[in-house]
Amino acid sequence: MPAVSVCLSPLLVNLHDFKGKIAVVVDVLRATSTIITAFEYGVKSILPVDSIDVCRDFQLKGYIGAAEREGKKVKGFELGNSPFDYFNPCYAGKKIVFTTTNGTRTISTIKKADRIIFGAFVNLDKVAVYLHSINKDIVIVCAGWEGEINLEDTLFAGALISKLESSYLREGDAAALAIKLYEQSREDLSGFLEESTHVRRLKKLGLQKDIDFCLTLNKYEIIPELVNGEIIPIKNIRNAII
Amino acid sequence: MPAVSVCLSPLLVNLHDFKGKIAVVVDVLRATSTIITAFEYGVKSILPVDSIDVCRDFQLKGYIGAAEREGKKVKGFELGNSPFDYFNPCYAGKKIVFTTTNGTRTISTIKKADRIIFGAFVNLDKVAVYLHSINKDIVIVCAGWEGEINLEDTLFAGALISKLESSYLREGDAAALAIKLYEQSREDLSGFLEESTHVRRLKKLGLQKDIDFCLTLNKYEIIPELVNGEIIPIKNIRNAII
Repeated sequence: MPAVSVCLSPLLVNLHDFKGKIAVVVDVLRATSTIITAFEYGVKSILPVDSIDVCRDFQLKGYIGAAEREGKKVKGFELGNSPFDYFNPCYAGKKIVFTTTNGTRTISTIKKADRIIFGAFVNLDKVAVYLHSINKDIVIVCAGWEGEINLEDTLFAGALISKLESSYLREGDAAALAIKLYEQSREDLSGFLEESTHVRRLKKLGLQKDIDFCLTLNKYEIIPELVNGEIIPIKNIRNAII
Repeated sequence: MPAVSVCLSPLLVNLHDFKGKIAVVVDVLRATSTIITAFEYGVKSILPVDSIDVCRDFQLKGYIGAAEREGKKVKGFELGNSPFDYFNPCYAGKKIVFTTTNGTRTISTIKKADRIIFGAFVNLDKVAVYLHSINKDIVIVCAGWEGEINLEDTLFAGALISKLESSYLREGDAAALAIKLYEQSREDLSGFLEESTHVRRLKKLGLQKDIDFCLTLNKYEIIPELVNGEIIPIKNIRNAII
């Protein structure tokens, strides 16, 4: 039986051997929720980059620029890190370059994974069904907040593990902690997350609607995947590869 | 009101500013439980060192050598990392040099804390009472296992925070996670910890009695503190300094 483990912070990725495994990157609030949403609205591809400067360079090359730091859209970019920014048919078919405080920067810390896919509560069931079909070891990589672990990504890890338990062994204390925490919170995810530092940060910025959106279960069926440095919806690459 | 935060792994210490704060180092299974026990049996001081080689050097200088790796006593040393090793009046008044897989190595990662003290379930209440009397910011530093977070140290962090809440603000998601996990487990700490990787490792080594001992609440009233690189019981330095 393959195993599922959890990496609670990008600073802990070196503890995991990703070789031959599937990495599921999660940044519930809000990068991965936003990436999934963008594809739902027809975006062609998303190029994740670490820095504002690199993001600006690609904007000059014709990409649509999306940049967020500390929860806010960065000046000089068309888009930020709110899913609602992407509710716009004008982005269908477009290429986006994207940098966020935690989510996109987490991607660059993962080396050697066989595949890197993106999960959030908005596509939870779809990710679980997909992973059941693959039967490889999984590491769920939580983006956290500037290296610190956070409650919302840990809860997503717990939720995903709970859906995988019939065909995956749970490995390590982080996985045990995540599922125990999820079991405690599953009846009232929003209430539980009132303690989350980032939930408080986003509320202060007037972004309650973003929080509500990102905590909605199974809104979408898209699973994004990193292919040759760019994120694209998995259905495309499935047609191409399989 | 001062704040209490939690560092879940030695790999995350750089996220914390220790300046002017009290660090409470915990390695429930078993280093800090063992250190507290050693002082209960009259040991004079414990010198924590990172490596087996350095431990051997100090052994040659007349210290009693204690060394553990992967849960086992290292060959060539008189003592290991079991509290039961120290149930011996012959160590009263003696100086010990000590290296363990996680606990002692965690100490060297903490820089700039005003004071570094040592906690475990065996001295939980005493540590809480002592911290109430101090009124400074606290960081609880979990030793974990080779950089990975672990359940037992996280639960200790939660237990200590639950006893500090009347006079300390809880800060950060790690603290929220720790207390929520502790609240879930407090009625049956041992049962909850059956999922702990290290509990399983120690059980395989036939060390159930060590686990039971280390999960016993408030057996002792000693609080060890790091002073000039050596660990001594806090009552001594209190007499000396105050």
